[in-house]
Amino acid sequence: MDIREQYIQEIIRNRESGASELARRCLEIVTDIIWKIQADGVGDMKREIEEFVHALQAARPSMSPIRNLLQTWLKNLQSLPTFTLQEFRLEAMRTAENLIDHSRRAVTDAATNAKDLIKPDSRIMTYSFSSTILALFKQLKKSGIRIVIPESRPLCEGTRLAETTAKMGIETTVITESQIGLSMANIDFVVVGADTVLKNGDVVNKAGTSLLALAARSAGVPFYVAFEQFKQSQENEKNLVLENMAASELGLSEQENLHVLNYYFDVTPAANITAWITEEGVRLNK
Amino acid sequence: MDIREQYIQEIIRNRESGASELARRCLEIVTDIIWKIQADGVGDMKREIEEFVHALQAARPSMSPIRNLLQTWLKNLQSLPTFTLQEFRLEAMRTAENLIDHSRRAVTDAATNAKDLIKPDSRIMTYSFSSTILALFKQLKKSGIRIVIPESRPLCEGTRLAETTAKMGIETTVITESQIGLSMANIDFVVVGADTVLKNGDVVNKAGTSLLALAARSAGVPFYVAFEQFKQSQENEKNLVLENMAASELGLSEQENLHVLNYYFDVTPAANITAWITEEGVRLNK
Repeated sequence: MDIREQYIQEIIRNRESGASELARRCLEIVTDIIWKIQADGVGDMKREIEEFVHALQAARPSMSPIRNLLQTWLKNLQSLPTFTLQEFRLEAMRTAENLIDHSRRAVTDAATNAKDLIKPDSRIMTYSFSSTILALFKQLKKSGIRIVIPESRPLCEGTRLAETTAKMGIETTVITESQIGLSMANIDFVVVGADTVLKNGDVVNKAGTSLLALAARSAGVPFYVAFEQFKQSQENEKNLVLENMAASELGLSEQENLHVLNYYFDVTPAANITAWITEEGVRLNK
Repeated sequence: MDIREQYIQEIIRNRESGASELARRCLEIVTDIIWKIQADGVGDMKREIEEFVHALQAARPSMSPIRNLLQTWLKNLQSLPTFTLQEFRLEAMRTAENLIDHSRRAVTDAATNAKDLIKPDSRIMTYSFSSTILALFKQLKKSGIRIVIPESRPLCEGTRLAETTAKMGIETTVITESQIGLSMANIDFVVVGADTVLKNGDVVNKAGTSLLALAARSAGVPFYVAFEQFKQSQENEKNLVLENMAASELGLSEQENLHVLNYYFDVTPAANITAWITEEGVRLNK
């Protein structure tokens, strides 16, 4: 298999990483690819890169950060003051590395801003595995917080996060998704990451996030979303593609009259969100 | 192990049957036990039976039908015109068999009343495994309905129901609990069974039912509960005992800082219910 196809398959198959992590991984991939593409000069190289970048974006259409980070990188490439192919490769690599650093700092800064909202000894519910939320829990681990995490079927990223926070010394409780409603009575607030935030403030995140928001609203519990600005999309839901994954992940095979849906993402309406938290600050829902 | 203890363990361990089925099973068990208890006359026999019945009720404290059917049976025993132990045993057995028949008819009649609310070709979401809902689907199977069923972790009673309805020829789709919110957009109505209906109309059912009700309400989808009158409790939530089952059912072992909750039931507030349907008719929420 061509190295390009190998990388695209890696991104398609990676169900474990959140959108931020995957977007940074895509930038790492392009820093490798630019050294492996054979090209007749910078112009030819740029065309090859663009084609590969579009294929990477198409690999995970629900994930804005991949599109946003890669588009930003492509845009930066256009204005690079380079003359030789070798110089172009070096500068393109540095540009990608800078974006990776910027993204990592944004995650930490968004977590710091979220931390300022949280009182010591809070009981927090989160969902799926978000690197921003993990960064937040790292900052909060000595403040006496207790966290409740649904397992997040079918691949149980929630259980993975719970095992991580328990090892960090935080009292952590795993529940099934079905217990989200009954567990909300003992929660002070919910904080989740995002895969994409739409122009209107709706949040695309792991399927089930919308249920946490409904349950939180019903119980009068604040619902926060923490994310880096790169996840902000300029589009609304009408252009949204939600990914439907393999039925086999549910341990079921389809047969006559028996179908399986395995959508990975759902949309939480802005109306059910208390605040959006990024590296730039906290925006409350009016 | 004593035969009484064996039966109690059977009821504790049976996670597959709904409350109606289990309550009828308890009556079958007592019709056997009355022939195996050694007693000095009818008075002694009644005391032994009462003790055993209390142990059976305590085995599954969340399930009102067990308590209600067994209490009705005990009450009927008090008024039996019997003289000998042998006569008492025969009458007690017939009384239990009548109650079992009554319960089976009630399930069918409640399903028939629910059927009258449902238009052909409806897209229906249900939850967990309810014998009343299965009876409803049997009546509707030629009306072009399509059904959507969450798997119902941890023991996946929903998947079991889906396999049953697919074999009956009904187009059936299994989803994870996490897809309840996003799937509700394509649903005409939700209908679920109940383990217990509280005095105030709140419904105790498989954990996660309250999330279906929230999602249905948010999407403007009617939410029906179909059950036999024996499930009607005369108590409100303050006396409710919800069962917390083994952590291992989630495939996890508890360790330092890592806990697991495995509550089987939650409470759906009456405010989120469109109608209660029993063998006696349909009561709309005002």
